[in-house]
Amino acid sequence: MATISEQTFFLDPDFEGTLQQQLQHMVTSAILSGRLKPGDKLPSSRKLAAHLGISRITVTLAYTELLANDYLTSRGRSGYYVSLSAPRPPAFDLTRGGSEDSVDWSRALGQKFSTYAPLHRPPDWRRYPYPFIYGQTDPTLFDHRNWRVCAMQALGQRDFEALTADYYERDDPKLVEYILRHILPRRGITARPEEVLVTLGAQNALWITAQILLTQRRLAAFENPCYPGLREILNQTRCKTLAVDVDTDGLDPTALSGEVDAVFTTPSHQCPTNATLPLERRRALLDRAEADNFLVVEDDYEFEMSFLDTPSPALKSLDRHGRVIYIGSFSKSLFPGLRLGYLVGSEPFIREARALRALVLRHPPGHLQRTAAYFLSLGHYDSQIKRMGLAYGERRAVMDQAIRAHGLTMAGDAQFGGSSFWMTTPQGVSSSALADALLDHGVLIEPGRAFFAPDAPDDRHYRLAYSSIPADRIAEGIARLAQALTRLQTGPGRPHRTPAPMSF
Amino acid sequence: MATISEQTFFLDPDFEGTLQQQLQHMVTSAILSGRLKPGDKLPSSRKLAAHLGISRITVTLAYTELLANDYLTSRGRSGYYVSLSAPRPPAFDLTRGGSEDSVDWSRALGQKFSTYAPLHRPPDWRRYPYPFIYGQTDPTLFDHRNWRVCAMQALGQRDFEALTADYYERDDPKLVEYILRHILPRRGITARPEEVLVTLGAQNALWITAQILLTQRRLAAFENPCYPGLREILNQTRCKTLAVDVDTDGLDPTALSGEVDAVFTTPSHQCPTNATLPLERRRALLDRAEADNFLVVEDDYEFEMSFLDTPSPALKSLDRHGRVIYIGSFSKSLFPGLRLGYLVGSEPFIREARALRALVLRHPPGHLQRTAAYFLSLGHYDSQIKRMGLAYGERRAVMDQAIRAHGLTMAGDAQFGGSSFWMTTPQGVSSSALADALLDHGVLIEPGRAFFAPDAPDDRHYRLAYSSIPADRIAEGIARLAQALTRLQTGPGRPHRTPAPMSF
Repeated sequence: MATISEQTFFLDPDFEGTLQQQLQHMVTSAILSGRLKPGDKLPSSRKLAAHLGISRITVTLAYTELLANDYLTSRGRSGYYVSLSAPRPPAFDLTRGGSEDSVDWSRALGQKFSTYAPLHRPPDWRRYPYPFIYGQTDPTLFDHRNWRVCAMQALGQRDFEALTADYYERDDPKLVEYILRHILPRRGITARPEEVLVTLGAQNALWITAQILLTQRRLAAFENPCYPGLREILNQTRCKTLAVDVDTDGLDPTALSGEVDAVFTTPSHQCPTNATLPLERRRALLDRAEADNFLVVEDDYEFEMSFLDTPSPALKSLDRHGRVIYIGSFSKSLFPGLRLGYLVGSEPFIREARALRALVLRHPPGHLQRTAAYFLSLGHYDSQIKRMGLAYGERRAVMDQAIRAHGLTMAGDAQFGGSSFWMTTPQGVSSSALADALLDHGVLIEPGRAFFAPDAPDDRHYRLAYSSIPADRIAEGIARLAQALTRLQTGPGRPHRTPAPMSF
Repeated sequence: MATISEQTFFLDPDFEGTLQQQLQHMVTSAILSGRLKPGDKLPSSRKLAAHLGISRITVTLAYTELLANDYLTSRGRSGYYVSLSAPRPPAFDLTRGGSEDSVDWSRALGQKFSTYAPLHRPPDWRRYPYPFIYGQTDPTLFDHRNWRVCAMQALGQRDFEALTADYYERDDPKLVEYILRHILPRRGITARPEEVLVTLGAQNALWITAQILLTQRRLAAFENPCYPGLREILNQTRCKTLAVDVDTDGLDPTALSGEVDAVFTTPSHQCPTNATLPLERRRALLDRAEADNFLVVEDDYEFEMSFLDTPSPALKSLDRHGRVIYIGSFSKSLFPGLRLGYLVGSEPFIREARALRALVLRHPPGHLQRTAAYFLSLGHYDSQIKRMGLAYGERRAVMDQAIRAHGLTMAGDAQFGGSSFWMTTPQGVSSSALADALLDHGVLIEPGRAFFAPDAPDDRHYRLAYSSIPADRIAEGIARLAQALTRLQTGPGRPHRTPAPMSF
C-alpha cells in the first residue's frame, strides 16, 4: 500500500487516441504490469493534471471511467485507490519480453565475469539447526547494542561531515589512527598513516592489490587450497599463476619458483586448513623474497581468533625491506556486512591503491568508518574479541571431543584457534555428496571443492566452522554427520541433488 | 590518552640482552616512535607478564626502572602511565626510513593509477563564506533527523541480517523494490529486479559498466567537456576513445563515428554544461545505436534537481531494444558520502555487473541499503527533493539576477534546473587564475579545465554551483567574482599559486 507520485506518469507524444484514453491506458497498464498494486493510492486529479499540464476535468473523467470498470475505488474525499478486485498482472512477464532486446549480448559484453561462483550457502541457513557454516555473525556474540550506540554517535551533528561528505584521498582519520596505534601493534607492525588504506573489506583489498602488482606477463603464486575469491581475482587479472600445495605447516617457501612476482599467503591461519606458518618458514619466505625480488601479500583475515595461544606476530612485522603487503579485515571481528578492511604497505604502493580505489568506488562510506572508529576506541572491539574467544574456545573443545569420539578425520591441526576445522572424508566418500545428504538432516557443512584449483579437483575435504553454531548443538550435529558418513560408505550412492527447503 | 593493550607487545627472539632490558627497550622505543603518547596507560604488570609468558617480577623491575628515568609515572594503585615529561618522538621519522625499502617500486608496480587527480576542493571549504562548490550536502536542506531515525530502525533487531550478513548475489530487496516501483517510473522506466544492480555510487556504476563493455579494441565515445572521473575510467580501461564536443543542446548524435561500441552521455543535465538533450536528438541517438549496433550509457546523476520544469523522461524510457544502460545516484538527492547508486540494463549485462561487483567488493554495505530503503519508503526522500527544489529555485533566481547585473557570461542555459551554472571568462582571463585570485576573498569556484580533454585544454570555463551557498550570500559572492574579473582584465597578472588558509 503506497502513495503513487504523480511524477511517475508521463504523456506519450506518440499515443494514438484522446488524452482521456491515454490517461486510462496509463493507469490500467500500470496495474496490469504490477507497478500499481491493489490498495495503492493514486495522485489527486489536481496534482496529476498540474504535472502533465492538462485540464483537471480530463483526469477526473478518466478516473471516473476507471472506477466504473473496477480498476479503481474511491474512498470519499480521501481520494482514488487501486481496487482490491482490480485485474491482477499475469503470472508471466508482460512488460518486456527478451525478444525485444536487439542486442547480441554475447558480442556486446567485452569481458565476462559471471563464471565466478561464490561459496554456496543457503540464504535461509539460520533455519538449519546445525549450521557449521563459516564467517557469519553470531547474534549471541556480537555486541549489537553498543554498535547501535556508536552508530548513533556517528550520526550526530558533530559528525555530519564524516557522514555526508565525499572525499577521495583521505580515510577517516579516527579509524586510521586506531588501526595504527592499537591494531597493527598487536600484530607487531609499525606503520605511518601514508602506509595504510581503508578498503571495502578484505576482498576489495585483495582485488586492489592484484590489479596493481600483476599484469598478464607477471606470475602470482598462491596457496592450494585457498580462498576461492582470491583464485577468481587472479583469473580475472589474467596474470600467470602458480598454485603451491600447502602442507600441515602451510606454504613451503622452497616450493616457489624463482620467476614469481607476488606470493599470496595466509600465514596466521591458512585458509582453509588453519595451519600456522612456523617462524623458520616466515624467515625463509622473506629471505627468498629479497633474494628473488618478489613481493608477499599477507592476508591476515582472522588473526583476532587466536584464543588457544598468543598469536604469532604478522609476517609483516618481520619485513625489513618493504616486501610485505598486509591485509586486515573487520569481517570476522565485527561483521562481514560492514565491508571494512585495510591495506598496509610501502607508500608508493598505497598511493596507487588509493588512486585505484578512487577510480572504482571513491571511498568506503564515511559513516561506517566513523562508527567502527567509535566502537574500536571505546573498547567494545576488545571486549567482543574476548567474548568470541571464550565462546569459540568452548565450542572448539566440544567439537574436538565429538569429532574424536566419532572417529572423524581432521586434515590438519590449528595451533592458535580460528573458527573452523578442516576435515577429510573416508576413502570413496565425496564431500559434496555428504553436504547434500546432510541438508535433509538439518546440518550444513561446506564441501571443500571450491578451495582447490579446478585442474586438480578435490572432493574429499570439507570445512566445519563453529562460529555460528551454539555449543549445545554441536554434539548432535557431529553425530548426524557421522551417521551420514556411515550411510554413504555402506548404502547405495544417493543422487547428487539440491533438495527443497525443509522444516526440521 | 588511551589504555594500551598488552597484546601490542611482543618478545623479539633475536634481542641481545636480558628480558628486563628488552622490556625497557620495548616501552622506550614505543614512546620514542610516538606509538605511546604522554598520558597513555600501560598494561598492568600481571597482564603483560601473562601475555609474554614471563615472570611478573621482571615486568615490575622494568617498569620501576622506567619510572626512575621518567618515561613512566605511577598513579598509586591505578597503574603506570607514560610520563607527561617523557622524551618526545623526534620530528623526523625514526621508525622506518625509506632507505630500508629494498623494493624498486617503479618496477614492482604492474599498473599505475595515481595520475588521476580528482577535482580540487579545499578540505576546509566550509570555512569559506562564498562556496560555489558542487555536489556537497547542505546541512540546512538535508533531513538529518529523519535519516537518523531510519538508520536507527535499520540498526534494530529485526534488521540484524540486513546489517551484518554478507551476501553476493542479492541486493536489499526493499531498496530494489523502491527503485523499481517509485524511482524508475518517475523517469518513465519499467524494469524487473533482474535488470537492476545497486552500486557503490554512480562512479562505481560507471566503472563497472566500462569494464564490461570495453576492451582495448573497442571504441568509447564520450562528451567533451565531461565528468573527469569518466575520462579517467576510460583511460584506465585502455579502450579507444572519441571525445565529442557538446553544443547548447548537448551531444550531437550525427557527430558519432559508425565504429563506436559504447556512448557515454548525460542527457538530462549535461555534465558540466547543464544542457538537456532534446527529444529529436534522443530519438536520433537511439536510432543510430540500433543501426550501428552500439550501446548507450546514460548517466542520470541529478535528475531530481529539475525544479524549473517537469523533467523529461530518461533516454532509457525510449529504449525499445535494450540498448541503454541507465545509471542513477543518491549522491545528490541524499548525500555523496552514502556511496549508493544503481545500474539498470538488460539481464545479461546486469548478470556480469553483479559478478564483477562481487569480485571487486562483494556488495554495498547492507545497513546503508536498508537505511536508504526506509528513508525512501517513508516519503522523506520526496520531501527532501521538494525542499531542495524550492531552495535551489530561489538560489538560482538570485544568482541569475546577480550574474546578469554584473554582466558575467553564461556558457549555456539549463532548461530544467540542476545545481550549477556553467560560465565563461572574458577573453584572456584564465579560470584557474580567477579561482586562485578568489580564494583570498573567501570565494570558491570550480575552474573548468578538469572537464576538458587534455589534448584540447580549455581554461576559459568555470562552474558556479548553488547547492552549498545560502541565498543571502550569493549576491556578495558574485560581486566579489566580478571585481576579481575586472582586476584580472586590467591589472598585472598574478602568479598562479595555492595560498595558505585564511580567515575572512
